Amino acid sequence: LSVPVRTDSLHALLAPRSIAVVGASSDPGKAGGRPLHYMLQLGFQGELYPVNPRREEVLGLRCYPSLAELPAVPDLCVIAVPQADVESYLEQCGELGIKAAITFASGYAETGDEGRAQQERLRDLALEHGIALAGPNCLGLVNVRTGAAPTFTTALERRPRLEAGPIAFLSQSGAVGAFVLGMVQDQELGLSHFITTGNEAALSWPDYARYLLEDEDTRVISGYLEGIDGAELVSVATAAREARKPLVLMKVGASVAGAAASAAHTGKLAGADYVYDAVFRRHAITRAHSLDELLDFSRALSMPTLPAGNGVAIVSTSGGAAILIADWCERLGLEVVELADETTARLRETLPWFASGKNPVDTTGRPLWDEEMLHRTLAAVAADPAVDVVLCHVGLAPGPARRIADEFVRAAAASDKPFLACWLPEIDPEPHGTLREAGIPIFADPVRMTKAAAVAIEYVNACRRAEEFGAPAPVDAVSPPPGNVVAEHDAKRWLVENGVTGTQEHVATSADQAVEHAAAIGYPVCLKLLSSDVTHRSDIGAVRVGVGSAAEVNVAYDDILRAVETHAPGADVEGILVQEMVEEKGVELIVSGFRDSVFGPCVLVGIGGVLAEVFGDTVVRPAPVGVAEARAMLDELRGAALLQGPRGTSPADVDAAATTIARVSALIAGSPEDVQAIEINPLLVLDQGSGVRALDALVTRIPKGETA
Amino acid sequence: LSVPVRTDSLHALLAPRSIAVVGASSDPGKAGGRPLHYMLQLGFQGELYPVNPRREEVLGLRCYPSLAELPAVPDLCVIAVPQADVESYLEQCGELGIKAAITFASGYAETGDEGRAQQERLRDLALEHGIALAGPNCLGLVNVRTGAAPTFTTALERRPRLEAGPIAFLSQSGAVGAFVLGMVQDQELGLSHFITTGNEAALSWPDYARYLLEDEDTRVISGYLEGIDGAELVSVATAAREARKPLVLMKVGASVAGAAASAAHTGKLAGADYVYDAVFRRHAITRAHSLDELLDFSRALSMPTLPAGNGVAIVSTSGGAAILIADWCERLGLEVVELADETTARLRETLPWFASGKNPVDTTGRPLWDEEMLHRTLAAVAADPAVDVVLCHVGLAPGPARRIADEFVRAAAASDKPFLACWLPEIDPEPHGTLREAGIPIFADPVRMTKAAAVAIEYVNACRRAEEFGAPAPVDAVSPPPGNVVAEHDAKRWLVENGVTGTQEHVATSADQAVEHAAAIGYPVCLKLLSSDVTHRSDIGAVRVGVGSAAEVNVAYDDILRAVETHAPGADVEGILVQEMVEEKGVELIVSGFRDSVFGPCVLVGIGGVLAEVFGDTVVRPAPVGVAEARAMLDELRGAALLQGPRGTSPADVDAAATTIARVSALIAGSPEDVQAIEINPLLVLDQGSGVRALDALVTRIPKGETA
Repeated sequence: LSVPVRTDSLHALLAPRSIAVVGASSDPGKAGGRPLHYMLQLGFQGELYPVNPRREEVLGLRCYPSLAELPAVPDLCVIAVPQADVESYLEQCGELGIKAAITFASGYAETGDEGRAQQERLRDLALEHGIALAGPNCLGLVNVRTGAAPTFTTALERRPRLEAGPIAFLSQSGAVGAFVLGMVQDQELGLSHFITTGNEAALSWPDYARYLLEDEDTRVISGYLEGIDGAELVSVATAAREARKPLVLMKVGASVAGAAASAAHTGKLAGADYVYDAVFRRHAITRAHSLDELLDFSRALSMPTLPAGNGVAIVSTSGGAAILIADWCERLGLEVVELADETTARLRETLPWFASGKNPVDTTGRPLWDEEMLHRTLAAVAADPAVDVVLCHVGLAPGPARRIADEFVRAAAASDKPFLACWLPEIDPEPHGTLREAGIPIFADPVRMTKAAAVAIEYVNACRRAEEFGAPAPVDAVSPPPGNVVAEHDAKRWLVENGVTGTQEHVATSADQAVEHAAAIGYPVCLKLLSSDVTHRSDIGAVRVGVGSAAEVNVAYDDILRAVETHAPGADVEGILVQEMVEEKGVELIVSGFRDSVFGPCVLVGIGGVLAEVFGDTVVRPAPVGVAEARAMLDELRGAALLQGPRGTSPADVDAAATTIARVSALIAGSPEDVQAIEINPLLVLDQGSGVRALDALVTRIPKGETA
Repeated sequence: LSVPVRTDSLHALLAPRSIAVVGASSDPGKAGGRPLHYMLQLGFQGELYPVNPRREEVLGLRCYPSLAELPAVPDLCVIAVPQADVESYLEQCGELGIKAAITFASGYAETGDEGRAQQERLRDLALEHGIALAGPNCLGLVNVRTGAAPTFTTALERRPRLEAGPIAFLSQSGAVGAFVLGMVQDQELGLSHFITTGNEAALSWPDYARYLLEDEDTRVISGYLEGIDGAELVSVATAAREARKPLVLMKVGASVAGAAASAAHTGKLAGADYVYDAVFRRHAITRAHSLDELLDFSRALSMPTLPAGNGVAIVSTSGGAAILIADWCERLGLEVVELADETTARLRETLPWFASGKNPVDTTGRPLWDEEMLHRTLAAVAADPAVDVVLCHVGLAPGPARRIADEFVRAAAASDKPFLACWLPEIDPEPHGTLREAGIPIFADPVRMTKAAAVAIEYVNACRRAEEFGAPAPVDAVSPPPGNVVAEHDAKRWLVENGVTGTQEHVATSADQAVEHAAAIGYPVCLKLLSSDVTHRSDIGAVRVGVGSAAEVNVAYDDILRAVETHAPGADVEGILVQEMVEEKGVELIVSGFRDSVFGPCVLVGIGGVLAEVFGDTVVRPAPVGVAEARAMLDELRGAALLQGPRGTSPADVDAAATTIARVSALIAGSPEDVQAIEINPLLVLDQGSGVRALDALVTRIPKGETA
């Protein structure tokens, strides 16, 4: 649980002007020496107060015997002492009015119950004194612009430099954080903040994220997550979208082994991975599946302008790379646009005589010694109205690299469209620096450039969709009939009462009654077992369809009872359902409202019956959704074409299906917490105008005393 | 078309001991200067003969006025003169008995017909004199071990060094080749040969590949392809598999825009991309989809030992990275194995007290200062019988990097299982060098390490499958009935004659005859239009199923004729087919033999009817295939579970389906070249033991004068 945090305390932690280090040491290998060493290296301009009663001077700085004897109250105290002493120093911070503290010490919740209790005491102290406490068991943090670096990550030992830039990196893992920091340095990526959250005794990932949304130096928040409170993440994502600061997140723990390791590592619940996917998609969070992707996507999303559409121009000094990029554009749904005649004419004037002037534009290697040609080519394609983004493969150009960079930037500066470059780092760092300063992201693989461009386009689309669909409407509280398993008839009746179209049906408790019901409904009918104890009825032969006469009803009735005796002896039989036989052909869907352990109510739609299982063709959203969003869910199904009436069949009633999805989503969202799932399977979608029929339904509750 | 090449000539080209450069220059920016400059830099130990009548000395080397005046006949002549003069120098080479030549000059086939004619003259000269000619329009080649570097790629200007190693890189694109060479240098990957094939006037990609298969320095062939003769590629792949030298290939031109650009760039036909996938899979060729993958996969496959199975142990100094790797193992079908109790006990003795000792093994950061712990951990998991491969995330370790590398190698050397490492490059190059020398591939992203391990496992499996399935059996020549479109009845009769199970059926040309046929077959029956002019009959209502009586036959017969008049007026009606109605429930497949423009006969199977189209669930193999391979194809379908009898349905007759696939594959392979496709759609697969029924079929030919 998160502690309410004062903004001024967070500011003292993340942008401190004065920093005390208790346990200060001159040894840059020690936790009390390394942060001081790094801050001196990075040129931190604020005050540094080493605190150690056994020293007069540390790394050339005046050392103080105690926190109480400092000449001023520092913004931040780095508590670099053995674990046993951390608590008392934190208390001192509180007494002296120090607003922020950080400790790297381990031995807390990650080691078991005793450590957890110690961690809770740190939390209580922070809460009591209003201290923004980072850690414990973290690797610290860095404010890249100011050089404030209360961290002991070895990444800064490996390379002492950090570039300032618009990306904040916010990691729940220290070691992954350090590794990414190393990658950031190797790739010369610019950061605003580097933050590892550690055990999150007091401050948690969302607290930092909210600060970064207000931070002027930060344009993109890039993060590594193992577990998080779902509502908090959604709230951060919503604020981020409103501020147009993209979130790029890697969330691990998707696999069985990974989730178990994650639980062991952090004690946090993993939640269903496909629900993370759904929430990310709904809330315009970009998901990275590797560390390379995390940085590539962050880099692309930190461009000052994002693409307005998916029209791509490819300019390449290598014909082969042009083909490769075009292949990936198609795979990722980007359009390699046909250039206007005027553009092609301009290109023909510029390029070698045998060049086609078509998109993808193969310039041949000539621009690598004729930079003007590169400029003219880039300017021509950027001016084309169909083009939203320019992907340029430079390759490598050790000779005239500076001039190439200048011409590249000149073309980009004259356009209001984003440019991305693929260019291996040259030995001379200046050319790449020139591009970076102009906000042009650089990649070392043409495919990675193309994927990053696709992600930037999708981010803009996701924001657009989120605005279009709006915030979910409030839902009325509802309550399904009682019972841990509400079987078909009751479940369907309740759904019909709540606006879902079902089938005519009645419960029979004798064969004669079944014949009566069938006559009232009209032949043919279906007969189905009603029993909470049997969930997959067709597996045991307890469903009979196309029952055409009174005589057949009698036979089917007996057959079903016999099937129960054979395959589910002892099952509680509530009756036999006699049901209208929906003869019209239609598409079967599964529509399910369910409750995720992390994000709460969700709604799922899939191409129904056996296919949903076999092809795993389902789409999920956090619930509730409106009808427009439900329609978008149907469009996202791989089998969406089945609803559009393939091969001479009639199109299905997509509107009615979407209305049902929206309705089910509102029902799960309005149900009490113990309702685990509201499932219609199948929902038969009839021809356009003919609506839908819920043919079967089930509501399940979590038995008291258990958790999801 | 490839020219027959003598091995000694190829050896003179790729491992020359003496090299003449005509057009020699002292300017390292010029085509006649750069190769000499590079070879001096790389320490080439053979003889270098600059040839230029206007110079006495070039770059400190004695310069000769003409090829004829050289003191000895060189192995290789680099023709670095303007395009107009290349031909006469090549002729001189032939007259002087020089076995190999290379030219970088452009202006040949890539510029149009005139250039193509000039290129053909080069080819004829090479053929006439038995010269191994590389290029034109290439960037040259490098023998890394000897330093022979007839190349003008700027990659060597950017970084003058190359590491020797077991990977040969063989590129059809010069610029992509140079880019990859730059990546290879940045990643400190070891190469045996770097070869760009250019326009392939004489020597083509397969010629070089065959040489490399014999080359002792080469263990993996890594390549970039735009277009290739299908039979040649299969022949190289077969030889490569027998030599256990993995091929890792990037093949571009999959997209519409990419294929068009590829055709413009190389004049080569792209072929269907999914057929490349099928051929690669069949012949154990590893496919890379990005340049990163190309190098990652090559690096993994160059390990001295490949994994014997898919059991993975994960050892990580970062809990977060351990989870990430475990997630990807699951995604890629690798098993994060449960360790034996003994292993867990050994790990508990070694690791911090709170560690679980389970797989994935989170060592905490301690091994980064306690290298012995790393060694003990690696040794313990490698000794576990369930483990086939060890994935170790070191992360970064600037301090004790050398000791960590030593302990890592010590553990790996004591084991017969492969180890892969994820470790960011340290500033000190030695630790990584130590791992590389021990054959341990290093990656800079845990996900890339995991994907590369999966590829190594799949390569071993693919070789095993290829051996199991063996070479395809020879097929008998067959000839389908004449006509460009052989419609259902004739096609099916032909298939039945050739061993495929069909349905009872007869052609009627009057309603009365239809009633007679129906009576003979037994009710109910199907009626279907027979017309070569109408391919999708059900779209226009020209198929009637479940026709139950003579009266219904009369109605259906008239309905079909009326449907043709309305929707396909003027279509040639050959009759109405009266067909046995197969009432049993079954799974519909599509089985199609077809001819690919690059690889020739192929066979495809898909989950039938509408679903194959909507879900794109199809599997392809080069034809013919045996029954065992056909069964493997069925297993690869995403919808394979439908055949296994999901949810209480009966399992389908997979054996009969596989037999039919094998049969169709033999028929397309045995058919004349103009037969484009032999398609059964649907093939109804009945319950186990009940066989299959070809319900509809079609054979198509390419009309004379057209090409596929």
